[in-house]
Amino acid sequence: MPTQEHMKAVLQAYIDGFNAGDPAAVSGLFADDAVIEDPVGQPQIQGRAAIDEFYVNAIGSGAKLSLDAPIRGSHGTSAAMAFTVDVPAMGLRIRAIDVMTFGEDGKVTRMEAFWGPDDMEQ
Amino acid sequence: MPTQEHMKAVLQAYIDGFNAGDPAAVSGLFADDAVIEDPVGQPQIQGRAAIDEFYVNAIGSGAKLSLDAPIRGSHGTSAAMAFTVDVPAMGLRIRAIDVMTFGEDGKVTRMEAFWGPDDMEQ
Repeated sequence: MPTQEHMKAVLQAYIDGFNAGDPAAVSGLFADDAVIEDPVGQPQIQGRAAIDEFYVNAIGSGAKLSLDAPIRGSHGTSAAMAFTVDVPAMGLRIRAIDVMTFGEDGKVTRMEAFWGPDDMEQ
Repeated sequence: MPTQEHMKAVLQAYIDGFNAGDPAAVSGLFADDAVIEDPVGQPQIQGRAAIDEFYVNAIGSGAKLSLDAPIRGSHGTSAAMAFTVDVPAMGLRIRAIDVMTFGEDGKVTRMEAFWGPDDMEQ
């Protein structure tokens, strides 16, 4: 089972990769067959090509992430974090909570992003 | 589908019920057959009697909750929040993120609490 330290470091690396403008660093945190549901309630994407494209687009928007509170672990194979997304070029702000679930190899196998229409300001 | 406003009001009522020392107000937010996994990675509890008992004990500990950031909705039937639990009598602090999923009737059908051993200070 991935350690608490590992899972929290991956979530921090997700934040840092966004803020460094490095999509490969972020998509590399995911398993090749990982599933992303961002936002929860919209269609999922799955697989290396879709995940790579997703982060090229998201990070290409200029989005920067800032943690709202310390990253949380669990007693299992998941960790979670509350953060704010700012996209200055679009005057956009989104408040999100991401939950990430890990495989035995320490890669993220599932990511769910909780944010609704009311959590976006423009 | 429950509205964003409804889901966020229920999560706020969960916080308020804890802080008012009112276990019935909190357990009443859940469906009779709801499942709680708190913390994620430990055995789940299910059903009215188990949920009532869980909140009598949790709230009886004197635990008080404070939001770390605004409650998040989703584009589906879930909402999430990051908060800190303080139990003054035990000198205990836990940083958690709860994800709650709702049924058609607006009751919580599933709650998952993300916090790990490292998220507890004593």
